[in-house]
Amino acid sequence: MPEANGKPEYLVGVDLGGTKIQAGIYDQKLSLIGTTKISTKSDRGTDAVLDRIARCVRDAVDECDLSLKQVQAIGIGAPGAVDSAEGRVIYAPNLDWKDVPLRKEIEKRLDLPVFTENDCNLCALGVHAIELKGKPRHMIGLFIGTGIGAGLILNGELYNGHNRSAGEVGHMVILAGGPKCACGNEGCFEAVASRTAIFKRIAAGIKEGEKTELSEMLGDNLKDLRSGDLRRAIRRKDKFTEKVVDEAAQYIGLAVGNLINLLSPEVVALGGGVIEALEQEMMPTITKLARDHVLPGTMKGIEIVASKLGDNAGIAGGAVLAQRSLKRG
Amino acid sequence: MPEANGKPEYLVGVDLGGTKIQAGIYDQKLSLIGTTKISTKSDRGTDAVLDRIARCVRDAVDECDLSLKQVQAIGIGAPGAVDSAEGRVIYAPNLDWKDVPLRKEIEKRLDLPVFTENDCNLCALGVHAIELKGKPRHMIGLFIGTGIGAGLILNGELYNGHNRSAGEVGHMVILAGGPKCACGNEGCFEAVASRTAIFKRIAAGIKEGEKTELSEMLGDNLKDLRSGDLRRAIRRKDKFTEKVVDEAAQYIGLAVGNLINLLSPEVVALGGGVIEALEQEMMPTITKLARDHVLPGTMKGIEIVASKLGDNAGIAGGAVLAQRSLKRG
Repeated sequence: MPEANGKPEYLVGVDLGGTKIQAGIYDQKLSLIGTTKISTKSDRGTDAVLDRIARCVRDAVDECDLSLKQVQAIGIGAPGAVDSAEGRVIYAPNLDWKDVPLRKEIEKRLDLPVFTENDCNLCALGVHAIELKGKPRHMIGLFIGTGIGAGLILNGELYNGHNRSAGEVGHMVILAGGPKCACGNEGCFEAVASRTAIFKRIAAGIKEGEKTELSEMLGDNLKDLRSGDLRRAIRRKDKFTEKVVDEAAQYIGLAVGNLINLLSPEVVALGGGVIEALEQEMMPTITKLARDHVLPGTMKGIEIVASKLGDNAGIAGGAVLAQRSLKRG
Repeated sequence: MPEANGKPEYLVGVDLGGTKIQAGIYDQKLSLIGTTKISTKSDRGTDAVLDRIARCVRDAVDECDLSLKQVQAIGIGAPGAVDSAEGRVIYAPNLDWKDVPLRKEIEKRLDLPVFTENDCNLCALGVHAIELKGKPRHMIGLFIGTGIGAGLILNGELYNGHNRSAGEVGHMVILAGGPKCACGNEGCFEAVASRTAIFKRIAAGIKEGEKTELSEMLGDNLKDLRSGDLRRAIRRKDKFTEKVVDEAAQYIGLAVGNLINLLSPEVVALGGGVIEALEQEMMPTITKLARDHVLPGTMKGIEIVASKLGDNAGIAGGAVLAQRSLKRG
């Protein structure tokens, strides 16, 4: 058990999402000591959410029998465009945030150094630094959930690009003229392979009279449908659900192929709620389709893997960000 | 006029293509002194092509009233997968080359240091270093010709990736299930927007009875059709050619949008024979479609431009490669 006195030697990673806030306490070797999770309640307004982030960190610290004095720094991932240098969230649609000085507000509440990044970037950083021990020189972290996002590790470092918006792979068009995307365009990767896209296809199928275990499990309006239900339906031999999930896996494989052709990373690590729930069902199709789409001779030594960090990728990346940012001064 | 004696202070860039070899002589400030162009004659075999590369360099040096003793180094771009560290062309389908020790063979013939790279990478390097004075921190060079390729400058440096095959944007699928590509897949960017794809659409249209100035200009079999003919037909108000070229421009715009969403570069510079011939006709559509496909708020300060280097991008990049490689020792 960590000692309750002593120097500030712990790091906190925070994953700020549209529905929940998660905080994790890490030691200097980046081992996870404990986590806390509370709901975001973004409808209560920006100040309330900022207070809840601070509370979640305090709760996690307390849960681990530590005090805030033993924390060195906090790394927070936010779901949107983040100006890391300034510590501001420029735009986060799921929180209804525009230009929120996240770093300043949390530093004020907790009196500790705070660093911020985009959530997908932090997830990729967590997978790269902790799960893969920083080994791959180039890695793409691809996260399939309600939406689809990616974080790019190029030459061993997080790559952000000119507007710090690199990795918006969910809006890579892969089926021009295809289904409408929330962004206004058609045929985006997110519009054919995210959880949202899968659920839409299933709802449309049921309307057209498709038989599925899902309506028996959840009723015809599919209230409370989750990725795990898809797995349960497929394991009950539900052919329709299997077909819809396999189609999404095919598009994911094709998109992974696009990314390998473009960036030739050493590892593509997949994560997010959809992959976590359906790894066994989707990964073989994803890997096959990706290999089919990569140019001959250019797949050598490249691995496509499902991350084992699951829901903890974001908090892990937050701890890595905090540690590295402190080192850089 | 350069002095015919003196120290080795000139750099040679070579663009080795499937149909022609071009060599350019540059001074230390990377100003172009003169060029020579000969046909490749790849059907004569690898040794013959290697001899012709050496001859093209000798001819260019002579054309500029210099001697080989005044040349510091040579940078060569080859159309395929290149192992720059080893100076080998791993695979170049247009030359029918597999594992050719290009550096060693040219060093043997000319007794000068030789450096090698993929041709699209060298074109991007030339545009970045010479045309844009090395200013953009992140730049994508996108080249539309018989095929489609790209070179990526990230964090000021050429990015190659794990298998040195990064930038294979021609095989990014943007229309899943679309037209068959030479690579075996369907709906690749190259299969809907390269010169080859445009020519196929025009030939198919003529077969279906479309009226076009092109068949009047060249006969119904379109022998010797070139990109410039498309421009001439459009300027003669040929609606069919205009439509086909505009469709290709729309796909290029969409692909540029994908690349900006993914990498957030400061500049996307377009080049290659199709853009050179049809810049005025295509660039407005390309720019509009790209902007339409980039996520709101992430286009700030990003420029989409047509390169002015044209056919000289490759030799320019060769000279830059030679100069930088010498500096690095």
